[in-house]
Amino acid sequence: MKMEDKKPSLEEVFSPCGVAVVGASPTGNTAFVRGLQEAGFPAIYPVNPNHTEVLGLPCYPSLQAIPGVVDHVVVSIPAESALALLDDCAAKGVRSVHFFTAGFGETGQKERTELERLMLEKARAGGFRIIGPNCMGLFVPKSHLSNAAFGKPLEPGTIAFISQSGGNAHDLPFHARPRGLRFSKIVSYGNALDVDESELLQYLAQDPETDIIGAYIEGIKDGRHFLEALKKAAARKPVVIYKGGTTEAGRRAAYGHTASLTSSAAVFDALCRQLNIIQIDDMEELVDVVVTLRFASPLPRGTGVAVVGTGGGATVLAGDEIEKAGLRLPPLPQEIGTELREFLPLAGSIFGNPLDARSLMSVEGVSAILNRLGKLPEIHMFVYHLGFHPASHWSSGRLSSNLLQLTNALLEAKRSTGKPVLLALRRPPDIVGTQNFLAAQEAFSGAGLPVFYSARQLAKAMARVVTWHQARNSGGGETAD
Amino acid sequence: MKMEDKKPSLEEVFSPCGVAVVGASPTGNTAFVRGLQEAGFPAIYPVNPNHTEVLGLPCYPSLQAIPGVVDHVVVSIPAESALALLDDCAAKGVRSVHFFTAGFGETGQKERTELERLMLEKARAGGFRIIGPNCMGLFVPKSHLSNAAFGKPLEPGTIAFISQSGGNAHDLPFHARPRGLRFSKIVSYGNALDVDESELLQYLAQDPETDIIGAYIEGIKDGRHFLEALKKAAARKPVVIYKGGTTEAGRRAAYGHTASLTSSAAVFDALCRQLNIIQIDDMEELVDVVVTLRFASPLPRGTGVAVVGTGGGATVLAGDEIEKAGLRLPPLPQEIGTELREFLPLAGSIFGNPLDARSLMSVEGVSAILNRLGKLPEIHMFVYHLGFHPASHWSSGRLSSNLLQLTNALLEAKRSTGKPVLLALRRPPDIVGTQNFLAAQEAFSGAGLPVFYSARQLAKAMARVVTWHQARNSGGGETAD
Repeated sequence: MKMEDKKPSLEEVFSPCGVAVVGASPTGNTAFVRGLQEAGFPAIYPVNPNHTEVLGLPCYPSLQAIPGVVDHVVVSIPAESALALLDDCAAKGVRSVHFFTAGFGETGQKERTELERLMLEKARAGGFRIIGPNCMGLFVPKSHLSNAAFGKPLEPGTIAFISQSGGNAHDLPFHARPRGLRFSKIVSYGNALDVDESELLQYLAQDPETDIIGAYIEGIKDGRHFLEALKKAAARKPVVIYKGGTTEAGRRAAYGHTASLTSSAAVFDALCRQLNIIQIDDMEELVDVVVTLRFASPLPRGTGVAVVGTGGGATVLAGDEIEKAGLRLPPLPQEIGTELREFLPLAGSIFGNPLDARSLMSVEGVSAILNRLGKLPEIHMFVYHLGFHPASHWSSGRLSSNLLQLTNALLEAKRSTGKPVLLALRRPPDIVGTQNFLAAQEAFSGAGLPVFYSARQLAKAMARVVTWHQARNSGGGETAD
Repeated sequence: MKMEDKKPSLEEVFSPCGVAVVGASPTGNTAFVRGLQEAGFPAIYPVNPNHTEVLGLPCYPSLQAIPGVVDHVVVSIPAESALALLDDCAAKGVRSVHFFTAGFGETGQKERTELERLMLEKARAGGFRIIGPNCMGLFVPKSHLSNAAFGKPLEPGTIAFISQSGGNAHDLPFHARPRGLRFSKIVSYGNALDVDESELLQYLAQDPETDIIGAYIEGIKDGRHFLEALKKAAARKPVVIYKGGTTEAGRRAAYGHTASLTSSAAVFDALCRQLNIIQIDDMEELVDVVVTLRFASPLPRGTGVAVVGTGGGATVLAGDEIEKAGLRLPPLPQEIGTELREFLPLAGSIFGNPLDARSLMSVEGVSAILNRLGKLPEIHMFVYHLGFHPASHWSSGRLSSNLLQLTNALLEAKRSTGKPVLLALRRPPDIVGTQNFLAAQEAFSGAGLPVFYSARQLAKAMARVVTWHQARNSGGGETAD
């Protein structure tokens, strides 16, 4: 009990003043030093007895040789040196040690599991925390604390993500950045020797800087604590979980990856339903669902979708995908069809819901149609698409000219109807198209409009969020204490 | 019966000597003229009484004014002028008329449906065929016949695609090109007034230039003919169908799009199962399945997959996705694990199936591991992935340096093991990453290696193809006459 009391809180761990990077080398591992530099962290101390400088910073022979305060240590030296290093950490009075180093319990070797036990003993005795081992550690934009650059968005935001996989902890911010998502904390916790998913969830549940919680979990260390933490988190904030290792092959891999004994997929599914957790199947869906939660505002009051866009085949597909996902496209009343025929060309249009009209590429067309359809009470949200004839739009740059006006028209329609507007824009396969596409995505995402890469992805994410929202409003899931 | 005898065959329609583009204009529609120019078609005749030149070509006031032979006509003048134009076509002795023009039966207006009937009468009387109306028409690379450029691959290939949607007829070659697919014929046939899906399937079944048949179909015009044609095609070649309008909303849109009364999804599903048709759900899946059929050679004899790649989270995900799709990852025999430990680093690797090893980014690592695993009889194919830490691979260009050697190592492993190698490479979200990714994709696809954008897409496509292949080998589906 006394030892427990000495443990620094996660809040302390997430706001260090000085970071040492043990094992940094000008000829080898520079990723962590570079990550901290790019994030603008003020006090970075490379440690390596064989070098005097790493990326322009003085390099120290040991932790003890560092003149300033060190409260967080990033470790990339071999597992064999872990125990000696932890003695140094205790002597230096650090708060947390992140082991990038792998080769511990996940190897399945008995002596490596024993090594982990001894490391935890040293951490408790020394009054510091361990992140990992076998992980990418901490990304906390507000504290300028970053683990490796890789295109992470450095502006702080309100989304938190905890991940047992270091790859996924990079993957999310990299792919989420161009879609407008920004983060409060991303924690890659690997083997979860000390800081584990339960403690992280418990923390994030009450973290005032976090509105939405995402998680990639392979195995649960302590079922009872996890359940408690998850219950607390889900009662306060939307929680989105991607559970890895749900098949035999996935389970074998998860054990070899982070020494995780994954629980039964059926048990996990049941738990998620009970607590109103949004469960998804891969990292792309995680981004899609978080984008929906963040930008589909106000969240729709029902499942009625009006689909507007250009392109016949794409319109049929959008209608099919959205209904297959469990949302509905209410047919439009007769008089709307008549009204629309007055200002849309007869040829090449589909009057109805879904609605296909070339004029939906123009600012005036978008404003007129969205505002008209927005008056219908059975329509709860809009899906706008134009990415299905990608060649003509993206690769010719035809759209770029009035991107700003189009963005404003969509924002104005959202404001005046009080109903969210979601965009489905298919990514082009060529470089010129990609350049134009990225510019359009930046304009839309930057304005707070949710962008999805297909009607299917949009529909699946929105359907999950609507289900979550309805369950929450009807008192589904447990309530907060 | 006599009138029927006069109809030109599709073979004649697909190899015209001279093409007139009625309604081309230097200030308006240049897409069809440009498409023909880019495809290198030798005799292009713009027709427009208001102009004398379009894109550097002499423009004629009427069909009759054209000095040379015209056997195919592309029409983009308003529907109201259709009948008069068809009289001109008959007088000029053309074989086929493609109506890009829309605004016919798909409007739902009685007089427009009657107009279609009169057009068909004129075609029969004049001895020519109608493509459409309301469609993008013909793309036949071997004949240098193209409808609009939009990044289509101009080298002839062995894949045919028929599409009721003009957008999808552009979409497929645009997205399929960087993945190595090349086409024999792509036909966008819109309202199917004359040339319809049944006649096209019948033709493609026996077309020696076509190995794989893809189709996007909204409605079936004549159930009995369709069944016959489909039976014949499926008995000879793999047939992949994307059926649009499978939901209420999709059905409404399909009617407004091409005047199609879609059949029941359940009936269509049953038909596909009976005839061993590969049914897919969207255009991306269509590309995935055709890429598999074309490049996963030799087609595997079973469902056993060895997954090799780098990245723990990605490895767990790949295992999960592949087993969820219905393929299997056989566990590796004990002795293989021991062998692998001798030449792979202990830390950061997962020894097993799926196998995660950093050395799989090296040419030597790939060769050694694939050749060793390829000896196991329970392994029928390889999945190689490295795209799940995209930031580090693509955006840093780290992979580009040894791309050629890596490609050769994968090809060599495929050759020496006699088992196909499939690649899952996730697309990066940034422009630098995309440049590197496209270069890698070009190297792999150009060498005949199938590239997929996610483990899920790969697994779904491969599972469908394995099911198709097994049914075909066990005599499933009807046999050829």
